[in-house]
Amino acid sequence: MDERLLKQIDFIIEIDKMKNIHRLSLLMDKSRRETDAEHSWHFAIAALLLREYADEGVDINKVIRMALTHDLVEIYAGDTPAYDVIGYADKPQRERNAAEKLFAILPEGQAAEFHALWEEFEQAETSDAKFAAALDRFMPLLGNYMTDGHTWAEGHVREEQILARMDVIREAVPKLWPYVQKVIAESVEKGHVIPKGGK
Amino acid sequence: MDERLLKQIDFIIEIDKMKNIHRLSLLMDKSRRETDAEHSWHFAIAALLLREYADEGVDINKVIRMALTHDLVEIYAGDTPAYDVIGYADKPQRERNAAEKLFAILPEGQAAEFHALWEEFEQAETSDAKFAAALDRFMPLLGNYMTDGHTWAEGHVREEQILARMDVIREAVPKLWPYVQKVIAESVEKGHVIPKGGK
Repeated sequence: MDERLLKQIDFIIEIDKMKNIHRLSLLMDKSRRETDAEHSWHFAIAALLLREYADEGVDINKVIRMALTHDLVEIYAGDTPAYDVIGYADKPQRERNAAEKLFAILPEGQAAEFHALWEEFEQAETSDAKFAAALDRFMPLLGNYMTDGHTWAEGHVREEQILARMDVIREAVPKLWPYVQKVIAESVEKGHVIPKGGK
Repeated sequence: MDERLLKQIDFIIEIDKMKNIHRLSLLMDKSRRETDAEHSWHFAIAALLLREYADEGVDINKVIRMALTHDLVEIYAGDTPAYDVIGYADKPQRERNAAEKLFAILPEGQAAEFHALWEEFEQAETSDAKFAAALDRFMPLLGNYMTDGHTWAEGHVREEQILARMDVIREAVPKLWPYVQKVIAESVEKGHVIPKGGK
């Protein structure tokens, strides 16, 4: 049996674990938390749907690949909730170690390809990565909007924290920004988010 | 607010339901059944990983889009298990009705794009669609291999049924065929599949 193919199949088997990594975000019907695999799928399809709002020159096929692969490191590093200040302190190192371990399963060439894709997403400097980062943040915003601000309320999140986290949307997908502002304003009004200056 | 964008967001919200459509296939750790969203993600990433085995001329970016969207109709039509003869009788009509209803949420242009992508996958005639179909069948085969032939044993599936269903792999991804044969032979040997001529 071809060794290269067997490595690729081993990787496909290993990443089945993405179906067991749960995020804080609920499904929109609130029945349970969503998995990393589900989030990655939803994010990839949102990229396909909203590609017309990306900056000229954005390679949407690359963005879709980023969406599919951006959270794979969480198989070993776990999910770090967006507003978890303590968890964020060692997140880069945990995820870097996870990337080393996970992508080493892949055969030559592909290990480097997946690593580079993840690295580019993490750095969030290229226009492809910025568009991807914007959608990765838009998805849980939309999820919160549909679930009475579930993770925001649970985490006692403040309006200014959300505005800061969503700022990449304003920058990379300005067409989406009025909708984001509306969601945040309504969520403050409904008491799901602590308003600026509030307690 | 831009009406086109709102339709796109409505669609993103509607397809969250893919996280609640369960397939017969178990997760590889056997903890529960996988969801359509999870399967679509896993299939898309497998396409990315195994693209070197596709026929020359296969557009892998299109295959990935097919993977992401091929099961969306199940939001209204439900999942039809692979070896369910009765369910398969009215599957085309149920899924066609579901496609009409679902893609109508999308704005002009995108409704047609998603419909065409799904239609091409369903027809399984182009080389893009054949490569996609092959992987869509490979994924549950691998899942069965990792879970003691769970859906095969449960459905009293026969070796010749699996060979017929997997034949598109032999045709579209011949490099993968020896692995498929090995999985089927081992599964027969372990008693998870009824052998040819057996009861």
